[in-house]
Amino acid sequence: MPAPRAIAFDVIETLFPLDPLRPLFPRIGLQESDLEPFFASLLRDAFALDTCGFFKPFAEVARSSLAQMGVAPDAAETILDGFTNLSAHPDVRPAFDRLAAEEVPVIALTNGNPDVTRTLMERNGLAELVSRVISIEEIGIWKPRAGVYTHAAEAAGVAPAEMALVACHPWDCQGAMSAGLTAGFVRRTRPYGSAMSAPQVTGESLPAVVADLLAL
Amino acid sequence: MPAPRAIAFDVIETLFPLDPLRPLFPRIGLQESDLEPFFASLLRDAFALDTCGFFKPFAEVARSSLAQMGVAPDAAETILDGFTNLSAHPDVRPAFDRLAAEEVPVIALTNGNPDVTRTLMERNGLAELVSRVISIEEIGIWKPRAGVYTHAAEAAGVAPAEMALVACHPWDCQGAMSAGLTAGFVRRTRPYGSAMSAPQVTGESLPAVVADLLAL
Repeated sequence: MPAPRAIAFDVIETLFPLDPLRPLFPRIGLQESDLEPFFASLLRDAFALDTCGFFKPFAEVARSSLAQMGVAPDAAETILDGFTNLSAHPDVRPAFDRLAAEEVPVIALTNGNPDVTRTLMERNGLAELVSRVISIEEIGIWKPRAGVYTHAAEAAGVAPAEMALVACHPWDCQGAMSAGLTAGFVRRTRPYGSAMSAPQVTGESLPAVVADLLAL
Repeated sequence: MPAPRAIAFDVIETLFPLDPLRPLFPRIGLQESDLEPFFASLLRDAFALDTCGFFKPFAEVARSSLAQMGVAPDAAETILDGFTNLSAHPDVRPAFDRLAAEEVPVIALTNGNPDVTRTLMERNGLAELVSRVISIEEIGIWKPRAGVYTHAAEAAGVAPAEMALVACHPWDCQGAMSAGLTAGFVRRTRPYGSAMSAPQVTGESLPAVVADLLAL
């Protein structure tokens, strides 16, 4: 496969760790360790709804996941507000700077809310390095459905095979590859899942993954 | 809608709580609280694979989820073995006895392994009350995809609208309703998810849910 002409990055966890949400959980009657089941069940439910032919945006599925954990609606907003106050992983800027230098467009491709994502990019000083923020709300289907990735490639003006997706989520890499993109897996804290097809590139940091993608 | 002529029951958590798995997690280097993210991420990944057009059976996705949590393959078998040693919720037998008395067939409809499910039924003295164990491995798609539920109705010799699914998982109730079945939600520990369509019946125990389904 060729080096990608555009690179899409997953946003939540891949660019912005969820750690700032952790101390919010005790404030709403849960435990810090409830962060992981909250986010996994949010995605589980979103994918299930997709399978059933429904589209619900990120905030609505997040509220639903919290409701299933017994969280009252008002308290759920504490967690949702937290998503606007995340700090980028320190390796994001060097990776984006490299791509700017190489004139390879950076797409932020998120299952999250577009306004929240743009806010995060601005607050973290990354907005000028991102050519386009694409939320699933534009097309009404969640990653890992293939249409999200092909929509992103079309928006970037490249063929799917000319685009790479970088994510710390194996299910996202799997979806991108199923749609014909190249996948770069950044091993944040977790190994790759053995049930998923192996990504073309794996690395310990975003600059390492980007460098290996550009060397394809 | 009419009273169901056959009732399918989700198996894992709905009939058999996962509590016996909890003390196994510290033995494999994780924490007891990792039970919830393990099971939520297992389903998340299975649904994602389904979205991408892949089918992997329960055990393989479970191993993949544990690998992502940093668990070595040998240690993962400790958790998988635990799935064969679950004890039924105490309200299962009275619900199944009622359905036997009413001559309404009981189907065990599981995303799990068929042999493990039959073993669980036998060890818990429930096998003679279940007319058929149907695993997704028969058809190679996971719940909540509609084909699983319509396959179960066909196996029971009834129309989808004549069958009910009972589950403690909102995503499973949503799938059953999307396939034309009636859904009964048993509120084990968790409320229903607000992003999902409301089930026709909700109750605090399996006998209560069954009674309300039979009264439709």
